[in-house]
Amino acid sequence: MQVVAGIDIGGTNSVVGFVNKEGEILYEFTVSTKDYQKPEDFVQVISNKISTYCTDKDYSLEAIGIGAPNGNIYSGSIEFAPNLQWKGKVKLAEMFIRQTGVKTFLTNDANAAAIGEKMYGSAKKLNDFIVITLGTGLGSGFYSNGQLMYGHDGFAGELGHTIVVPEGRQCGCGRRGCLETYASATGLIKTYNVLMQNFKSGSVSEELTAKDLFNKAEMGDKIALRAFDETARMLAIGISNAIAITSPQAIILFGGLASAGDLLLKPLDTYLDKYLLEIFKGKVRILVSELMDRNAAILGASALAWNEIL
Amino acid sequence: MQVVAGIDIGGTNSVVGFVNKEGEILYEFTVSTKDYQKPEDFVQVISNKISTYCTDKDYSLEAIGIGAPNGNIYSGSIEFAPNLQWKGKVKLAEMFIRQTGVKTFLTNDANAAAIGEKMYGSAKKLNDFIVITLGTGLGSGFYSNGQLMYGHDGFAGELGHTIVVPEGRQCGCGRRGCLETYASATGLIKTYNVLMQNFKSGSVSEELTAKDLFNKAEMGDKIALRAFDETARMLAIGISNAIAITSPQAIILFGGLASAGDLLLKPLDTYLDKYLLEIFKGKVRILVSELMDRNAAILGASALAWNEIL
Repeated sequence: MQVVAGIDIGGTNSVVGFVNKEGEILYEFTVSTKDYQKPEDFVQVISNKISTYCTDKDYSLEAIGIGAPNGNIYSGSIEFAPNLQWKGKVKLAEMFIRQTGVKTFLTNDANAAAIGEKMYGSAKKLNDFIVITLGTGLGSGFYSNGQLMYGHDGFAGELGHTIVVPEGRQCGCGRRGCLETYASATGLIKTYNVLMQNFKSGSVSEELTAKDLFNKAEMGDKIALRAFDETARMLAIGISNAIAITSPQAIILFGGLASAGDLLLKPLDTYLDKYLLEIFKGKVRILVSELMDRNAAILGASALAWNEIL
Repeated sequence: MQVVAGIDIGGTNSVVGFVNKEGEILYEFTVSTKDYQKPEDFVQVISNKISTYCTDKDYSLEAIGIGAPNGNIYSGSIEFAPNLQWKGKVKLAEMFIRQTGVKTFLTNDANAAAIGEKMYGSAKKLNDFIVITLGTGLGSGFYSNGQLMYGHDGFAGELGHTIVVPEGRQCGCGRRGCLETYASATGLIKTYNVLMQNFKSGSVSEELTAKDLFNKAEMGDKIALRAFDETARMLAIGISNAIAITSPQAIILFGGLASAGDLLLKPLDTYLDKYLLEIFKGKVRILVSELMDRNAAILGASALAWNEIL
């Protein structure tokens, strides 16, 4: 059987899955990313496992697809990823090609998610859409005219780093007011803490997670509800700007914060009605990814590989 | 000789030019748009002139290209253009086809400008670039992967209506804080008036034009200089956001305000260095259109026609 290997690289763990053309994940395994100080060792261990498994099962490995933070399709490198211990530019695709002899493609995780949606998810029939991943940060992948938009250097799709509040919150990128400082799990927690300080004039000592705030909001906690409302407001501004530029048919939300459901989606709808340019109102569907389970990242990475070789 | 007719529709006048494949404008004429209350009459007059001229010169008219405010490529219509007296949706392409029997294509003026740059201007060799027209408002056309980005409905490229200051200046579109309320001739004048009120605590009675402010700034007027600086700052934020999404090789500026030269471009450079995401710094060229004379709009409209039939 023809298969590709889809690899989702995370700071703590990486997951590898074998996927056929129909998008079935035949087998997957996990490797601890942080155990490998050198990317070369990491690549060798995964390559050996891949080869052994394919030989055992008599699979024909057609290609490898990798979704990685700060991944670049043109260079096949991970470039200066703040959440990985591998520093600088890491030519991961080249390392896999050397170890396996198989074509290898690498892009950032949000682009991989977008390719996955196009191949297997809600975007099968769409030519113009945006996938927004709402996790610790905010990632995005844009399809335009039926093609993933890479930009001239492979770094297109940085919606999380569009500035929505000039001179606003400090962002990890060194600038201020980026969308992801407001519309992400981190942004939600920050907003909650700011509201707590304003309303209760107390200091913020609790170590809160987005999940905690979800639970509080579900219980009717007014400040948690306001934090979700404000997060949705900023997300609506960012989405409205992305729509004004690319005019997509749909926005597909993905990731932890997207699973907050109506807590986020209801105020998002209200604010989109406020912030969307008139000509786009009622035209753009806001969807939550249907692939949002543990396999979605693997599907995305494998879709990249199928996409490039077919 | 094979020619196309390029038509640039403005609220006051419309200009029609005959253009060969090499981009030479062989002849042009002007028609008063505002003299025609009905678009049908306008189309008939132009169509007759086009036919007569082509017969006289023995030209073979291959197609008609139209650049118009709020023009839509898919419907061939001008849709709710605030600066034209023709209200609602005007199916202008269809009217021309009926009158001339020739294929007719219509898009908005900023998209036409972008196609013109790709065919005849600074963007000949570029696949990813943005044309920004800085006039009364701010229009834009985006190329991605070598194709003009129309979006699913033909309305992509509304950079002027991305929100850069939430709850900021009132925009003609009904929302607040749109880029074009700051980064346009109108925005520049507004900024100057606001600064005048702040600094001189006087009321603003003068009817100023952007040209007046250019002259004042050239003479060293500090408030005019600050108005250009602030206009450049807001433009830098808008451009930085557009770059974060599409990662182009170049930004090509066009229109009245772009001809202000260093008054705008120098502070723009400084602010781009502040607002651009690190990975894009030093990668994106800021150019002023080489086509910026009275024929540029005709070249854009004719390039659209050549582009669609070739």
